[in-house]
Amino acid sequence: MGSIGEDTSHVDVLIVGAGPAGLMMAAWLAKCGVKTRIVDKRGTKVFNGQADGLQCRTLEILDSFGFGDRAWKEANHMLEICLWNPDSSGVIQRSARIPDTIPGISRFQQVVLHQGRIERFFLDFMEANGDLHVERGVLPTKLELDESLVESPGAYPVTVHLRHLSEAEVTPKQTGTAVNGSAIQDGLFRSNLAADDTDELINSSALDARANTEEVVKAKYMLGADGAHSWVRQQLGFALEGESTDYIWGVLDIVPITDFPDIRMRCAIHSAESGSVMVIPRENKLVRLYIQLTTTAYNGGKRADRSKVNPDVIIQAAQKIMAPYKITYRRLDWWTAYQIGQRVGTQFSKHERIFLAGDAVHTHSPKAGQGMNVSMQDSYNLGWKIANVVKGLADRSILKTYESERRKIAQDLIAFDHRFSRLFSGRPARDIMDEEGISMDTFKEAFEKGNMFASGIAVDYCSSVIVAKDSKSNSVVSTQELAPEVKLGKRMPSVKFLSQADARPWHLQERLPSNGRWRIMVFAGDVTKPLQKEKIEKLGAAFGSKTSFLHRYTPAGARYDSVIEVITVHVAPRNQVDIFDFPEIFRPYDEIDGWDYEKIFVDDLSYHEGHGKLYETFGIDPEKGCLVVLRPDQYVSYVGPLEDYDAVDRLFSGFMIAQ
Amino acid sequence: MGSIGEDTSHVDVLIVGAGPAGLMMAAWLAKCGVKTRIVDKRGTKVFNGQADGLQCRTLEILDSFGFGDRAWKEANHMLEICLWNPDSSGVIQRSARIPDTIPGISRFQQVVLHQGRIERFFLDFMEANGDLHVERGVLPTKLELDESLVESPGAYPVTVHLRHLSEAEVTPKQTGTAVNGSAIQDGLFRSNLAADDTDELINSSALDARANTEEVVKAKYMLGADGAHSWVRQQLGFALEGESTDYIWGVLDIVPITDFPDIRMRCAIHSAESGSVMVIPRENKLVRLYIQLTTTAYNGGKRADRSKVNPDVIIQAAQKIMAPYKITYRRLDWWTAYQIGQRVGTQFSKHERIFLAGDAVHTHSPKAGQGMNVSMQDSYNLGWKIANVVKGLADRSILKTYESERRKIAQDLIAFDHRFSRLFSGRPARDIMDEEGISMDTFKEAFEKGNMFASGIAVDYCSSVIVAKDSKSNSVVSTQELAPEVKLGKRMPSVKFLSQADARPWHLQERLPSNGRWRIMVFAGDVTKPLQKEKIEKLGAAFGSKTSFLHRYTPAGARYDSVIEVITVHVAPRNQVDIFDFPEIFRPYDEIDGWDYEKIFVDDLSYHEGHGKLYETFGIDPEKGCLVVLRPDQYVSYVGPLEDYDAVDRLFSGFMIAQ
Repeated sequence: MGSIGEDTSHVDVLIVGAGPAGLMMAAWLAKCGVKTRIVDKRGTKVFNGQADGLQCRTLEILDSFGFGDRAWKEANHMLEICLWNPDSSGVIQRSARIPDTIPGISRFQQVVLHQGRIERFFLDFMEANGDLHVERGVLPTKLELDESLVESPGAYPVTVHLRHLSEAEVTPKQTGTAVNGSAIQDGLFRSNLAADDTDELINSSALDARANTEEVVKAKYMLGADGAHSWVRQQLGFALEGESTDYIWGVLDIVPITDFPDIRMRCAIHSAESGSVMVIPRENKLVRLYIQLTTTAYNGGKRADRSKVNPDVIIQAAQKIMAPYKITYRRLDWWTAYQIGQRVGTQFSKHERIFLAGDAVHTHSPKAGQGMNVSMQDSYNLGWKIANVVKGLADRSILKTYESERRKIAQDLIAFDHRFSRLFSGRPARDIMDEEGISMDTFKEAFEKGNMFASGIAVDYCSSVIVAKDSKSNSVVSTQELAPEVKLGKRMPSVKFLSQADARPWHLQERLPSNGRWRIMVFAGDVTKPLQKEKIEKLGAAFGSKTSFLHRYTPAGARYDSVIEVITVHVAPRNQVDIFDFPEIFRPYDEIDGWDYEKIFVDDLSYHEGHGKLYETFGIDPEKGCLVVLRPDQYVSYVGPLEDYDAVDRLFSGFMIAQ
Repeated sequence: MGSIGEDTSHVDVLIVGAGPAGLMMAAWLAKCGVKTRIVDKRGTKVFNGQADGLQCRTLEILDSFGFGDRAWKEANHMLEICLWNPDSSGVIQRSARIPDTIPGISRFQQVVLHQGRIERFFLDFMEANGDLHVERGVLPTKLELDESLVESPGAYPVTVHLRHLSEAEVTPKQTGTAVNGSAIQDGLFRSNLAADDTDELINSSALDARANTEEVVKAKYMLGADGAHSWVRQQLGFALEGESTDYIWGVLDIVPITDFPDIRMRCAIHSAESGSVMVIPRENKLVRLYIQLTTTAYNGGKRADRSKVNPDVIIQAAQKIMAPYKITYRRLDWWTAYQIGQRVGTQFSKHERIFLAGDAVHTHSPKAGQGMNVSMQDSYNLGWKIANVVKGLADRSILKTYESERRKIAQDLIAFDHRFSRLFSGRPARDIMDEEGISMDTFKEAFEKGNMFASGIAVDYCSSVIVAKDSKSNSVVSTQELAPEVKLGKRMPSVKFLSQADARPWHLQERLPSNGRWRIMVFAGDVTKPLQKEKIEKLGAAFGSKTSFLHRYTPAGARYDSVIEVITVHVAPRNQVDIFDFPEIFRPYDEIDGWDYEKIFVDDLSYHEGHGKLYETFGIDPEKGCLVVLRPDQYVSYVGPLEDYDAVDRLFSGFMIAQ
C-alpha cells in the first residue's frame, strides 16, 4: 500500500477544512502574504446541494476581496417574501408580501447561490493572491499543543500529523440524484458543473501521488474549520452545548413544474394540518423546498428515522401542503433530510493558538440561510488578526477578541433560529382563541424583525482593545455623537462619494478592500472654512511627524499606506478644491508614481449617480468633522474629534508593535 | 525550411484580422453556432498602446455578450472634461467643466481601457461559446470570388489561400519603452501584462508547428477586418477616399509626475502659442497625452518627417504647452506619433459575400476615442445578419443593409473628426477680433455637441427591409407615435423594470442579450383594464396559431424562442397580476423546465432600485400599449399597435425564410 514516509515542515498557519470558513481564512492569509497551508479530507470541493443563502453583509465582504460581483452576477436575487396561510376554509392563500432585504441597509440584497460556486471564487482568489491551493485528501491524525510556547511570538507550538489519503478513500459523499429520484452512482450531477470547475475534477486523480504518506507540520497558529463533527474540536476536548428537536425536514432542489404563482419568490407556506413548506428560488431555474415531514416525526427525545425519507416522500408532503396548487418535477439536483439541532461551542480557541470556526462551533437549522454566512464571518473576523500578529504588526492581545466577538454572534444565531424554527414548524392558529397554534401575525412580525438579524448588518462587536466603546476595555473612549450613524462596533456604513481628483463616484465600502490595513477616515468637513482648514493643517503636521503612529507602526521600506491608510472625505464643493489644498500626508508622493490621487474624496453631487449626502446620512457636522478608525474588517474601532490626534495615537499604542 | 503542403477545407465564414472588428464578428458567429475561422498575421494580440476609449454604446454591446462588467470593472472611468485656455495674460487656466458623458443617455458612461484587454474579453468569450480560437501567424496570400455563385444560398464562392508563418516572421511590431525612453528590445513592456494574458504569450511558441505550410479555404462569407492597410480591400480593388492633413501628433502613455491639478480628468488644453494637449486618464495610473508637435509640422501636402519624433521631443512639447505646470515621468508604457488622415471606403462589400469592417474602410484621428468603437460596431451590425443568413433563417436581402447602414456612420465619423481636429489643432483666438484663431466658446460648443455623437447612442439607421420607417423601403410602416421615445432605427433605450414572477429589477437592455434572436416586445399596457386584457388575449391567439410567424420561422425541434422571442411588459400594479393572467404564448411551457418565468415584466416600483417609469419615459399610453420589433442588435425595426398582428407578420415575411 505504498511507503509510510514521515517528514516535518513549518508553516505560519495551518487550516483544517476547506469549506466556506476555511477558505475565508485562507483568502485573508493569502492576501496578507502569510505562509499558509489548507487541507481537506475530501477529494474535491462541493458541486451542488449544501448551503446557498448569501446575506447582504456576506456580499459586502466578498466584494471587499474583489469577487462580490461574481456572486452577484451568478446568484438568484430574492426580492420578496410571500407568506401563505390557511384562510377561514383551510385553503392556503397569500396573506402578506415583505421585502426580503430591508431597503436601505446595504448596497447589496440577499441572494442565493450554492456553496460550490462561492468556494470556486475563493479558490480562484487564493490562486491569484499568493498561489495558495487546497491540499485535498489530507487527514489530520494527531494534534499537540506545546503550552509552554503559546505566549512566545515567533514559536511554533502546534504540531499536527497529516495523512495523505488515496483516491479510493476520498470518494465524495455528496448525493446527486436525477429524474424522479433514481440515484446517479458517482454522486455528482454533472450537468450542473460550471465550466471553471472541470479542471478540479480532472485534477482530483492527482491525489494518488502522495497517497498513504504521512507528514508532520509545525504551525504558529491553526484553524479548525472542519464542520459539525470537527476532529479539531474533539482533540481539544471542547463541547457543543444545546439540543436537537423533534422536527424532521426534507430538502429538495428541483426544477419545479407548478401552477403555484409565487414559486420564484421566497415563500413560507403554512398549511392548516399538513405542515409547512419554505420555498427558496435558486439559480439555473432551481427551487429549493424545505418541507416539514409531519408523518415521520417522532415525539420525545429519540432520533427520528431518516432512512425512510426519500424524494418521493418529500415531494408528496409538499404536494399535500401546497394543495390545491400542483407541484411536481422532472429534474432533481440534490436532496437531503435533517433534524434541527441548535448548539454552540463552549470555547472558540485554545490559548489563542488553535481556533475553531463555522459549524465546528455552532450548528443550527439551514432554513434562515445563515449557516454559510456566519461561518465565513467567523474566519473573516479572525483572519486579519492572525495576519497582523504573525507579521509582527500587532500583539497577541487582539486575538482574544475573536471569542468575545464571535461567540455572542453564535449565541444570537441559535436564539434566532430556535424562535424562528418553532414558529415555522408550528401549526397555524385557527383563530385568536387557538392558543396552541402559531399566530400568523406573530409569525410575520418575527419574519420582519428576523430580517435585520439575518442581513448580517446588525452585528455589533463589544468593547475591547480594538473597539473603543468604553473605558473598561480601552484607555481611549470614543465620541460617538460626532458621527451618530457610524456606530462603534458595527461595520462602516456605505454611501456614494466622489474621488476629488477625477469626480468618479464610488461606494465608500469599495474603497475599503480587505488587504489587512487599518484605516483612518478623516472627515475633514468644509475645508473652505478657515477653521476646518486649520484643523486639517494641524492634523497633517501631526500625522506627518516622524514620531507619529503612521511612521512608528510601518516597517522600514514598506509603502506609506501598507499598515495604516489615511482616507479623507471633505464636504466643500468639489470644484472649489483640488488635492493640492490638502497637506501632503493626505495624498502622499511616490517618486515613481507621483502624487496619490486615490486618497481624497468629496461628498458632492455626481453627474450620473446622484448625491450620497454622506455627512447628512452619517450625522457629521461639516463645521466639526471627525476622525474614524476602521479595523481591517471595516468594523468601527473609534470615533473622535479631528483635533484629538493623541487619542488615535493612544488607541494604536494599545495593541500595535513599533517597527 | 519544412514542407509546403496544400489542403482544402470548407468554412461558413472566414475572418481575416483579429483586432476589435474581427473579434466582434467572431464573437457573434461563435454565439450563433456558425462554423467560423479567424486568422491574424500577428503572433499575439496587443498588450499595450493602441486604442483605448469605450463609448456608452460599446459598453452596452459588450454587456449584451455578457462581459460589459469586466470592461467596466477594469476601466478608468472618465467623468468630466476640463477645458484649459490662455487667459488674458496668456497663461493657461481652467475655463469650463463638462460632463464627459451626457447624463441620462445610457446606463453606462464612457470609459478608457486599452484594446488588449477588450481583445482578451472577446477571446475568452469565443472560447466559452463555441471553442473558437484565433489562428495567429496566418497570412492570406490569394483571394478569389466566384461571381456565378454569389446568389446561391448554400454555395462557397470565396476561395482564400492561407500561409502559416514561422515565429520569426511574426515578431510583434509593437513598441514598448521603459524609463525615460530607453526601448525594451523584445517590444513588450511585460510589467503591464495581465495575469490572464500570460498563457497566450507562452502559446505563441506553438506557431512553428504549422510554419511554412499553405492551405486553401473555401468560405460562404468572408470579412476583411485587417486594418488601415487592408490586404482584403486591396484584393477587391476598393479605394479609401479622403485626405490627410498637416498636423503631427505625438502620443505618450505615461505615469505622470505633475502638479497639474486636472491630470485625472479628460482635458483639452490650448496654449497661446505652443499648440494643444489632450489628456486622457487611463487605468493603472497611466495617462495618455495627445500632444500637438507644432515645431515638426510641415505645410503643404508632403508627409511630415516622423522619424525625428521620440518621447523626449513629445514630453518637451507637452511641458511647453502645460507651463507653468510641471509634468514629467519615470514610467513610459507606449508612445507613437501620427498624422491625421480622414478616409472612407467607397464600397463596404463585394456582392455581399466579402465584407470590410473597421479601419479597413475608415481611418481618422484617435483623439475622440472613436476608432475601436466604430470598428466593433461595424461587425456588430454585420455578424447577426450573416449568422441569420448562413443558418437559413433570413434571406440575403438583409445583407445589403450593412453598407447602407454603416457607410453613413463612417461618413459622419469622418465629418465629426474633421471638424473636431481642426478646432483642436488651431490656435486659440486672442479676442473676438482674432478671426484666424479658434473661439473657445465655439470649441466648447463643439465638444458638447460632439459628446452625443461620440457616445454612439445617436446612431440612426435608415429605412430598409429591416427598419420599417417608410413605405419606400418596406411594405410595412410603423406608427412611431405609439412610443415616441422608442425611435425607429435607433437602439432600444433602457430603463429598469421588474420581472413579474420574482420582482427582480432589471435594466431592459439586460434582457436583450446578443444571441441572434429577433424580439417582439409586447407593451401590454394596464392589463387590469378589460380592453387591454382583450387585446392581449387576441394577440395571444394570433401568436399561438400554428400559422403564425413564431411557428413558421422556427425550425422544427428548435426551442420556442430560438428565432423570435416574445417579451411582455405591462403596467398594471405588480401585486394585482401574476403570469397566469397572460396567455400561454407569453410564458411558454416546457415539459422539463415548466413554465417560463422570464418573459413577462412589469413597470412598477422596486424595493431597492427605484421606479423605471418605462411607459412614461417611452411615451407609451397604458390604455393603448404597442408592439415593438427589435433586431438581434437591439435596433428598433418596427413600432405599431397591439391590434395589428398582421403588420408584424408582413414585416417578418419580407426577409425571413419559412422553415
